[in-house]
Amino acid sequence: MEEKRTDISKLGEFGLIEHITQNFPIKNESTIKGIGDDAAVLKYDNKKVLVTTDLLLEGIHFDLTYFPLKHLGYKTAVVNFSDIYAMNGEPKQLTVSIGVSRRFSVEDIEDFYAGVRLACEIYGVDLVGGDTSSSITGLIISATCIGETVDEVYRNTAHDNDLICVSGDLGSAFMGLQILEREKKVFEGDKDFKPEFSGREYLLERYLKPEARKDIIAELKKNNVIPTSMIDISDGLASELMHICKQSNKGCRIYEDKIPIDYQTALQAESCNMSLITAALNGGEDYELLFTVPLGKHDIVEKIPGVKVIGHITDLSLGMAMITRDGEEIALKAQGWNQTKE
Amino acid sequence: MEEKRTDISKLGEFGLIEHITQNFPIKNESTIKGIGDDAAVLKYDNKKVLVTTDLLLEGIHFDLTYFPLKHLGYKTAVVNFSDIYAMNGEPKQLTVSIGVSRRFSVEDIEDFYAGVRLACEIYGVDLVGGDTSSSITGLIISATCIGETVDEVYRNTAHDNDLICVSGDLGSAFMGLQILEREKKVFEGDKDFKPEFSGREYLLERYLKPEARKDIIAELKKNNVIPTSMIDISDGLASELMHICKQSNKGCRIYEDKIPIDYQTALQAESCNMSLITAALNGGEDYELLFTVPLGKHDIVEKIPGVKVIGHITDLSLGMAMITRDGEEIALKAQGWNQTKE
Repeated sequence: MEEKRTDISKLGEFGLIEHITQNFPIKNESTIKGIGDDAAVLKYDNKKVLVTTDLLLEGIHFDLTYFPLKHLGYKTAVVNFSDIYAMNGEPKQLTVSIGVSRRFSVEDIEDFYAGVRLACEIYGVDLVGGDTSSSITGLIISATCIGETVDEVYRNTAHDNDLICVSGDLGSAFMGLQILEREKKVFEGDKDFKPEFSGREYLLERYLKPEARKDIIAELKKNNVIPTSMIDISDGLASELMHICKQSNKGCRIYEDKIPIDYQTALQAESCNMSLITAALNGGEDYELLFTVPLGKHDIVEKIPGVKVIGHITDLSLGMAMITRDGEEIALKAQGWNQTKE
Repeated sequence: MEEKRTDISKLGEFGLIEHITQNFPIKNESTIKGIGDDAAVLKYDNKKVLVTTDLLLEGIHFDLTYFPLKHLGYKTAVVNFSDIYAMNGEPKQLTVSIGVSRRFSVEDIEDFYAGVRLACEIYGVDLVGGDTSSSITGLIISATCIGETVDEVYRNTAHDNDLICVSGDLGSAFMGLQILEREKKVFEGDKDFKPEFSGREYLLERYLKPEARKDIIAELKKNNVIPTSMIDISDGLASELMHICKQSNKGCRIYEDKIPIDYQTALQAESCNMSLITAALNGGEDYELLFTVPLGKHDIVEKIPGVKVIGHITDLSLGMAMITRDGEEIALKAQGWNQTKE
């Protein structure tokens, strides 16, 4: 009898980890929420604790040809902090373990951890664990972040007519990656090549040294706004919005002309003949926050610097769509970079 | 100017992660203990929470030629639980992320998580996070375990005259690995080869499907014994004893004839012409508990099934030594498998 063999390429298509873990029963009192959001939620007496974890692999998630190790350490920490903020929490502790091949020196590892350290200092997080081991090929990074929260915010709690908000601007990290990938190709053909990054520093920084939106969480708190749902944008706006809508059993309408896009992103899209709106909808690694608030909070959120209202939640029956500048309604599809990753 | 480049092979020699992280300041109230023990310790109101993390890499930490994926999933979970028990805690939540190359099928991943699930059921732990992503080569496993404790037990708190105790028996997992490695070599030269494992099942099980000593922690609690220090034996008795002694600023004496060794281990050492005591001292992956208790607890611990007193803690000036069966005193040296791992 032949054994059944399903190709791993199917993996992203049906969210393998959810599929595999859906019937894991929850046994412990302290477990409030398991797999399926930005972080797990645990409860101890009156304190709620968030746990999120990330596995980053060379050649899959990053390319060391153009990614400085210190930046990579910084980004490793920040993307984990971002998951905690996306639960309306504050990151407090971090563990970072790495596997390194012989290609790396001790100084390389020190560079990497210098980046981790800088991020920890800036965000007020303690490095509490991790280890280094050898690997056969390349760099392997595993990080876990622990945070605290009073009012955690999930993905599955958006309501009809809630406003859909995003922080910052979208598509810029994706454009930064495009520049780096293109320059890498040019570089490979020409040893005397000097990359021209001038005027595009913002795009590169968005990709190589992203920040987590601690400031937005603080502003929301200051204004007494608790989002009804929230997620961070790691796989692209469309993909994350689908998570919120699907898990909340809702539809949505967003407006093309409301989606925040930086000037450099627009210029770059034009110069490399790419669709700007596709970059904003489907480009990943922005690490901005996508959240919903009750309609009545409109005037408050509009005044928070860096927050933009881009649409609203609807009944499930209306589906997910974007209204273009021409007033056309087009269905939203997720085409994130890394669909296997929550 | 040439950049300094220290070879990664130096990594194990000076405990790189401790070196790099030693000056990370602790900023958050909830952080009680960071890097340097089996797990980090966090505090929320009156609850103490333990966090431990592990990165397991194909070709470095395991060989899929003879390691069934379901067993590997089970072991991944159990070795993390073991770190929590070694802090005198109870594991409660687990996250397991994997990176898989195209060589693996969805069914392979299901097998792996079936093992994780079985371990979670047996030990009463909830799987609360994790994701799957692709990898360029091989299988990469990252696991984080969260536990709870009332009286956490560290490595650096052993006192003069404390009794040194171990659970179970030592060296058997190492012998199991030797058998598997040898049969693999034979197998590679002969396609019709059938491995002969009969009579050595215990050794194989010790390596392929270890258990964490939940029972010993429960017995100690039942008998009102809180160890003065504790660690789990992942890198070999000598190496772990050195952690306790160094971190506690103490010396020790252990007795060769007291070290618990299974009959199958002894037979196997003889048949492959290996030093039995070296296997027991330096063979790793036993996942037994090594702990110290006050002298006055002698009669109590002696009665706990599966616990053996093997020596005592001394003043630092006396150094670390083993008294052989001939009454000779030989200095203890650590020669664990994986010195980069805490």
